[in-house]
Amino acid sequence: MPLGATKFMVITRKLIRTPGIVAHVGVSIKGALDALQQGGTVLVYDADGREEETDMAVASQFVTPTVIRTLRREAGGLICATVPDEVRRRIGLPYIADVFRDAAEFYPVLKHTVADDIPYDKTSPFSITVNHRDTYTGITDRDRALTISRFAQLVGEALRRENGWAPAAMGAQFRSPGHVPILNAADGLLTKRRGHTELTTCLVTMADLIPSATICEMLGDDGRALSKEDAKEYAERRNHVFLEGQDVVEVWRARSG
Amino acid sequence: MPLGATKFMVITRKLIRTPGIVAHVGVSIKGALDALQQGGTVLVYDADGREEETDMAVASQFVTPTVIRTLRREAGGLICATVPDEVRRRIGLPYIADVFRDAAEFYPVLKHTVADDIPYDKTSPFSITVNHRDTYTGITDRDRALTISRFAQLVGEALRRENGWAPAAMGAQFRSPGHVPILNAADGLLTKRRGHTELTTCLVTMADLIPSATICEMLGDDGRALSKEDAKEYAERRNHVFLEGQDVVEVWRARSG
Repeated sequence: MPLGATKFMVITRKLIRTPGIVAHVGVSIKGALDALQQGGTVLVYDADGREEETDMAVASQFVTPTVIRTLRREAGGLICATVPDEVRRRIGLPYIADVFRDAAEFYPVLKHTVADDIPYDKTSPFSITVNHRDTYTGITDRDRALTISRFAQLVGEALRRENGWAPAAMGAQFRSPGHVPILNAADGLLTKRRGHTELTTCLVTMADLIPSATICEMLGDDGRALSKEDAKEYAERRNHVFLEGQDVVEVWRARSG
Repeated sequence: MPLGATKFMVITRKLIRTPGIVAHVGVSIKGALDALQQGGTVLVYDADGREEETDMAVASQFVTPTVIRTLRREAGGLICATVPDEVRRRIGLPYIADVFRDAAEFYPVLKHTVADDIPYDKTSPFSITVNHRDTYTGITDRDRALTISRFAQLVGEALRRENGWAPAAMGAQFRSPGHVPILNAADGLLTKRRGHTELTTCLVTMADLIPSATICEMLGDDGRALSKEDAKEYAERRNHVFLEGQDVVEVWRARSG
C-alpha cells in the first residue's frame, strides 16, 4: 500500500518539471512528507465551500505526550486518529453511524438522531472511541499518546499479518468507549471523500509511513474555525507546511495515473 | 427534582453550625453554588485513589463560546455535558457501552473491545456524542456552545413535560455522532457512583439550575492530570471554588437525610 520513495520522487520530479502552480504543489507536498517522516506537524485546509477548516496533522506512529499537548493547546479541536479502509476492514471497525442505525431497534432515540443532514458532506468518518488498556483515565497527554502510538503499531501490523489476526489483537490492546475517536478513511481515499481524514491518511501513506494520521481542528479566538489566512500565517510563523486539499488531490492523482 | 434555595440554606446553616471541617465544606459548597448560578466555573477533584483528577465545571445552561474556549485552553480534556438519570430515561439515551454490547452481533470487534477493565470505576458514563442540527462542523466554540446550551434547554423541558415527549424532540434538534459526548449520571447520583459526572450533576441540581453540567478534565504540563495541588493553586489564582468529591457527598447526604 505505501508508495515507494523512488516512485514518489519520480512523481515529484514530474510535477516540478511542469511549470507554475503544480511545480509549487510538488515542492510543498515534498516538504509535507519530509516533515511527517520526521514526526513533524503539517497543516491541511480542506477546501473553500467544504468545512473550510485547517487541521493540524502528525503521523500517528510519532505521537508523543508533547504532540498531544501541542494539538490541544495550539489547535483546540478533537484529537482523532485515522485508519485506512483496508485496515478498517481487517479490524472490523464499524462506522458509528452504522452501529447507531443497527442499535435503533433497542434504543429508539437513535432513529431520531440520525445524522442525515451534515452540512459539508454526506457521511461522518467517526468510528468508535478507544483507550489503550494500559492507560489510566485515558485523557492525559501520556494516555492519549500511548493509545494513538500503539494504535499506529496495530495498523502497521494488521497490514503485514494475514487477515483474521486483527480483531482480537485490537481488543487485547484497546477498550471502547475511550477518549480517542477513530476516523475511518473512505474506501478509495480521495476518489470517494475529500475530508481531513482522507487527505491526511493520503499524506502519511505517500510518506511511506504507517497509514494513520492524528489530526485536530484549528480553532480561532472568535468562536469560529481558524480562518485560512490565520492558519497560513501560523504555519509560516512556526515553519510548518500549509497545504490545501486540492494540492494533495493533484499529487495523489499523478501517483495513481 | 431541584433543591429549593430555602431548603439548601437550611442545610448550609445546619452544616455551618456544626464545628470544624463540615462548616468549611458548607461555606465552600455555598460559594460553588453561587458561582454556578452566575455562570461561573467551579473546580471539582474526585478523590484520592479514584481518578485523582480535577474537572472544570460550568452549568450547561450558561455555556457560551467563551466558556468553551476557556475549557479547551485552560483545562484541555474532553468537553462533555452531563444528564441526570431521570432525563436520560425520558430521552432514552443509551450508555454507549450497552450499544456496543448489543451491536457486537453485527460488529464482532466490539466483543473484543469491551471496557471491562476501567482502572478507577466499574462503568463508563459515556452516552452518544451529539451536534445541534444548526451547527456547521460541530467543533467550533460557537458550535459546541450551541449544542450544549440547547441540550440544557431540552433537559429542562424534558423534566417539565409529560413523559414521551423527549425522544423525538431530541432527534429534531440533535444529530449523532457529533462533537459533544453526553455523560449519563448514575441513577441515585452519589449513592451509586462518585465520578465527576455525578458530582457536578449533583452541584447544578443543588444550585436549582437545569441539572446538566459541562465538564472538562484539567491536564498538566507534564503529560499527567493536573495535580491536586496545582489545581488548588489555579483555583486560588483565578478565584474559583475548589471542591473535593467528599465535600459534595457530605452536603448531598445532609440534604437527603
